[in-house]
Amino acid sequence: MTGVAIVGIGHSKFGRRNDVSIAELAFESIHGAVEDAGIDKKQIQNVTVGSVGGWYEENVPATVVNEYAGLERVGSMRVEAACASGSAAVKNAYLSIASGEADIAMAVGLEKMTEVDTLTAVELMGRGGSYLWEFENFGMTFASYYAMFAVAHMNRFGTTEEDLARVAVKAHHYGSMNPLAQFQKEITIEKALSSQVVSWPLKLYDASPISDGSAAVILASEDTARKLTDTPIWIRSIGASSDSADMSRRDSYVGLGAAVDASRKAYSAAKIGPEMVDVANVHDCFTIAELMAYEDLGFCAKGEGAKLLRDGQTMIGGKIPVNLDGGLKAKGHPVGASGVSMMVEISKQLRGEAGKRQAPIKNGIGLVHNVGGTGHYCYVTVLSRKR
Amino acid sequence: MTGVAIVGIGHSKFGRRNDVSIAELAFESIHGAVEDAGIDKKQIQNVTVGSVGGWYEENVPATVVNEYAGLERVGSMRVEAACASGSAAVKNAYLSIASGEADIAMAVGLEKMTEVDTLTAVELMGRGGSYLWEFENFGMTFASYYAMFAVAHMNRFGTTEEDLARVAVKAHHYGSMNPLAQFQKEITIEKALSSQVVSWPLKLYDASPISDGSAAVILASEDTARKLTDTPIWIRSIGASSDSADMSRRDSYVGLGAAVDASRKAYSAAKIGPEMVDVANVHDCFTIAELMAYEDLGFCAKGEGAKLLRDGQTMIGGKIPVNLDGGLKAKGHPVGASGVSMMVEISKQLRGEAGKRQAPIKNGIGLVHNVGGTGHYCYVTVLSRKR
Repeated sequence: MTGVAIVGIGHSKFGRRNDVSIAELAFESIHGAVEDAGIDKKQIQNVTVGSVGGWYEENVPATVVNEYAGLERVGSMRVEAACASGSAAVKNAYLSIASGEADIAMAVGLEKMTEVDTLTAVELMGRGGSYLWEFENFGMTFASYYAMFAVAHMNRFGTTEEDLARVAVKAHHYGSMNPLAQFQKEITIEKALSSQVVSWPLKLYDASPISDGSAAVILASEDTARKLTDTPIWIRSIGASSDSADMSRRDSYVGLGAAVDASRKAYSAAKIGPEMVDVANVHDCFTIAELMAYEDLGFCAKGEGAKLLRDGQTMIGGKIPVNLDGGLKAKGHPVGASGVSMMVEISKQLRGEAGKRQAPIKNGIGLVHNVGGTGHYCYVTVLSRKR
Repeated sequence: MTGVAIVGIGHSKFGRRNDVSIAELAFESIHGAVEDAGIDKKQIQNVTVGSVGGWYEENVPATVVNEYAGLERVGSMRVEAACASGSAAVKNAYLSIASGEADIAMAVGLEKMTEVDTLTAVELMGRGGSYLWEFENFGMTFASYYAMFAVAHMNRFGTTEEDLARVAVKAHHYGSMNPLAQFQKEITIEKALSSQVVSWPLKLYDASPISDGSAAVILASEDTARKLTDTPIWIRSIGASSDSADMSRRDSYVGLGAAVDASRKAYSAAKIGPEMVDVANVHDCFTIAELMAYEDLGFCAKGEGAKLLRDGQTMIGGKIPVNLDGGLKAKGHPVGASGVSMMVEISKQLRGEAGKRQAPIKNGIGLVHNVGGTGHYCYVTVLSRKR
């Protein structure tokens, strides 16, 4: 089987983007990725658009995106795995090359959530759960699902509200160095702790924002990748898993079973362990999610996520720097775009192009952890400097 | 690269299915496919759900479907390419095996359109076009898009309203032999011609209905397929293409450019020509679409679709029997399910299991033509008895 490498990356500004249509928003990252890859866009044989949708009138977005980018006649589809749609799109593009079907393929992540008002957005996000049971009967929203996890984690492991706030402070610290981030301002623990309670113990600063944005990666087969670039970033493995949509059927509320399973699959296929990972982007839709991710991915033992952060081990200079682009919390979380955005960041880190927020790279290995729903889906992707 | 074969097929009853939830509806075909493949469902490593969605409250359907079918922990995603979503799902499952990532994978097509009222369904379907321009400004719906094609075809090639009605009569003829079809009654040309005008020249009987339904196929790698069954149906190639969503940018209104392109890609990869195809399912969302498909696929020259039908060449006993399950017109068109349903029918035909509506099989080759939107997407899949 041919190796598959990321040879081009593109990323739009994240935030409230009512200055552009969805096609224009997608084009910002597509154009960047094509330029970065140094290809003619006509060489792209396959386009996969990761998008949850439901926010805009155009409900068949892939064709609109293709057309605006001048990519008609290319095989195309949209994929959706809730907030893991971006990773699902990358997986689809990866498979098209690994199978020999395409030589160059593109994955685009796209979402324009501010097309609807905030309450509608919250309702639509809530539909990612077991809608008819949990949303209709109990009014569960995404914040309240993750609040459940936070309470369980605090209760069982002594994690505190300060620990959660610390995740937000780290996110904003690195977000302040990312010109494409939605929020580029540092915050303090005090500010996070005193922000409005959304669903206790989660406050405004524990939650990722509603965002518009796009990100794109161009993948190529081994031979083509080596011709195109001196810094191909190889996709070593993609582990995928899923879980019950019904929270009452989960075994545990201090972690995500799908994340544990997906990461084990990804490590095993890449023949590495978590200690080999130099830099990671994890799915911090809420602060508690980042702490659980540290544990689910094996960066520390279960229950020790808060300690890992407190010890500075997930900052630059620590054992495993995490979310150096500001994470979903500060960079923004345009849901379908987020997984692809994470691939862009880890590619930059492994290329050594992350500037002020560059992590030291030792083993040449990075990881992307992208969750859909409350662990309904999880995709873990291992990226590497070496094939 | 390993061969990829269909080793299990399942199909729900199509029609108004307010007796079941979306998960139950999906389970009907999943259960059938698993039984037909003779596997333990735990062997399925990858699930792709083809579904347009937007009709039901649960807007992350893949996880709901997986869970109900007892397939948690499996890598999963939903794919969408408008009404070609079913073929896109099959392509995704195909790629997962062709790449070596999975040994057994399942594609499920699913739609439950009657969850919304008919007018809402018509509006949602209309959004498959260039919504903000064509729907908002001119009130274009799917019927009016295809009426445009019909008028152009009549004008240029002398195709008549009777020719269109003949497509519907053929569909209902074969639908009457399909116990899973939404409509199982023969109709006459007179009945079709005297039915209510929807968008001239298209009448009620020129249009496929709004439907609920699901279909599933289980794919396996070459070695596994040979162990599981004596009648593997090999996927020889999948050609995919796309086109402008904006009708004013199309070159022609008497055919679909994406269909021509996708079929050329599929024929070329399978190393066959259209004359080798023994039996086909084409995307007859409207009667005119079937006539254009004959031409776009090369079953006859451009403009001669109506003649091919009039001569009985697309009936059993003719040169190339088409839509022997009743087609979208009589079998029903639950949009995301349709492409997978077509794969089920062609697999049955190539296995020789189609009973009363069995086509003679000479070269052992069948074809599925699945269109999204008005040719925004097209997927053409070549199936074969021989690897």
